[in-house]
Amino acid sequence: MTDQGFRRIAIIGIGLIGSSIARAAREKGAAAEIALFDRDAEVRARAAELGLGDVAGTAEAAVSGAELVILCVPVGAMREAAEAAIAAMAPGAILSDVGSVKGSVARDLAAAVGRADVHLIPGHPIAGTEKSGPDAGFPSLFEGRWFISTPDPAGGGAYLAAADRLEAFWRALGSKVERMDPQRHDLVLAVTSHVPHLIAYNIVATAYDMETVTEGEVVKFSAAGFRDFTRIASSDPTMWRDVFLNNREAVIEVLGRFTEDLIALQRAIRWGEGDTLFDLFTHARGIRRSIIEAGQDSPAPNWGRDGGKR
Amino acid sequence: MTDQGFRRIAIIGIGLIGSSIARAAREKGAAAEIALFDRDAEVRARAAELGLGDVAGTAEAAVSGAELVILCVPVGAMREAAEAAIAAMAPGAILSDVGSVKGSVARDLAAAVGRADVHLIPGHPIAGTEKSGPDAGFPSLFEGRWFISTPDPAGGGAYLAAADRLEAFWRALGSKVERMDPQRHDLVLAVTSHVPHLIAYNIVATAYDMETVTEGEVVKFSAAGFRDFTRIASSDPTMWRDVFLNNREAVIEVLGRFTEDLIALQRAIRWGEGDTLFDLFTHARGIRRSIIEAGQDSPAPNWGRDGGKR
Repeated sequence: MTDQGFRRIAIIGIGLIGSSIARAAREKGAAAEIALFDRDAEVRARAAELGLGDVAGTAEAAVSGAELVILCVPVGAMREAAEAAIAAMAPGAILSDVGSVKGSVARDLAAAVGRADVHLIPGHPIAGTEKSGPDAGFPSLFEGRWFISTPDPAGGGAYLAAADRLEAFWRALGSKVERMDPQRHDLVLAVTSHVPHLIAYNIVATAYDMETVTEGEVVKFSAAGFRDFTRIASSDPTMWRDVFLNNREAVIEVLGRFTEDLIALQRAIRWGEGDTLFDLFTHARGIRRSIIEAGQDSPAPNWGRDGGKR
Repeated sequence: MTDQGFRRIAIIGIGLIGSSIARAAREKGAAAEIALFDRDAEVRARAAELGLGDVAGTAEAAVSGAELVILCVPVGAMREAAEAAIAAMAPGAILSDVGSVKGSVARDLAAAVGRADVHLIPGHPIAGTEKSGPDAGFPSLFEGRWFISTPDPAGGGAYLAAADRLEAFWRALGSKVERMDPQRHDLVLAVTSHVPHLIAYNIVATAYDMETVTEGEVVKFSAAGFRDFTRIASSDPTMWRDVFLNNREAVIEVLGRFTEDLIALQRAIRWGEGDTLFDLFTHARGIRRSIIEAGQDSPAPNWGRDGGKR
């Protein structure tokens, strides 16, 4: 256990993120005891088999005595998960989450808490894979990735000390930490995550529905670009439904801009404006260099997925 | 040299694809002599340093005596490259290419050839990375990937024998081969390659232009999905400009369907139609499974680019 470590944490929801937190916290010594609960009995049984921690039979038993409770459930299930946990939480404990939307979750959790002696500090680790479930997690998932913390800036000294402690926990898991207000989080993530996922889902759906091209042809020739989109389009459908339903204003705003830009690009193609296309394509190269320099993506050609450059 | 191998091939244009063909042909013994030419003197010098083959000072010298000439230049430069090579080509030789568009290239090359004793057989290997230039190539690039061959079905016996020989060459490089007519190729590739690239370029441009979100924020939080799009959006701008200018009808048709579907999805978000979103997202998962089963993508989470599941 590190200096900033917790004596006991509780993880509610044992999917990719919840099980990765359990694995990372154990490997990094960020928590002495790790309690887990999932409302699905099969998932609880699997978590016990995997040795992820002390799997409890109820949410109350998991959170009892925990200094930190992290809700790792879809955004639309946060309120119910908080309501199931809140009465059993210790005074002074921290309630946090990992939801991909922060405005609606902050509101939902505040409504569920109704106690002044629990520190509600929503958060969001910018990490994941396209896989789901307790087997999908791994301890290095958060290394070098950002954790966005959205504490209430009006909170008092004990509250802000709790926020510092939560952030130290995520640093111990390998994350970098940034504080942000929930509305800004939701706009930034609409650009970097929510709209990209929606577009990926949409192009897969469009390809399916083209009656002039068969599914077999799409699969065969997917290495020409299409396959890149299918990775994020294979992410958990429940999680993503809830993201779009709960961040609809920001998503619709960014989508409007995307469509406007796409139609302008389509017009440039129709009228043969080669310079417009060339300049835009050249410009787009720069951002990838920045992402690689910032350590947020692999520089390997094709991400090294074909066995790399041999 | 395999049984189907060529005594001498010439590669015109020494970028990612041209240099990969040279490396693969040597490694697999698919050609005894490999001549190369690029109109850029620096690229020729680099190709010589890399030992890719016999680097010639002119296109004529490269193609002289070659049984197969492959044009590996951007689609918009094909006609000029063919015109520079055609007079020096041996009777009975094959002229092929690797362009991402086949309708316009077949027309351009036919116009340039003007000789009945050269077999024009356009083609397209469905393989690549986001990198460009002679250093970017590697010999395994075509392994397990499709080569689409678009011979003229009206060709006679010697012509069809030449097509068989070209296809055997690509099989020797590790490819699987499919014959298709140029128009069908262009429609299928609009779905699996051209429109995905355009969408990737567009979302990068939209993210840049959002005045409410900074470029630094986009880079920092790109691991949430956005970074997936930046890989193909860092591909060669000249190549892609030419693709869109030369396959505009199919691209505009597929883009129209994409936009229609996206607007319907946006409407489902606006009106909170969770079931519509959930069903579409669930459906989209299936195609990724098919692509992985077909050996056209890696099953590793995040393509293993973060060091994989540890």
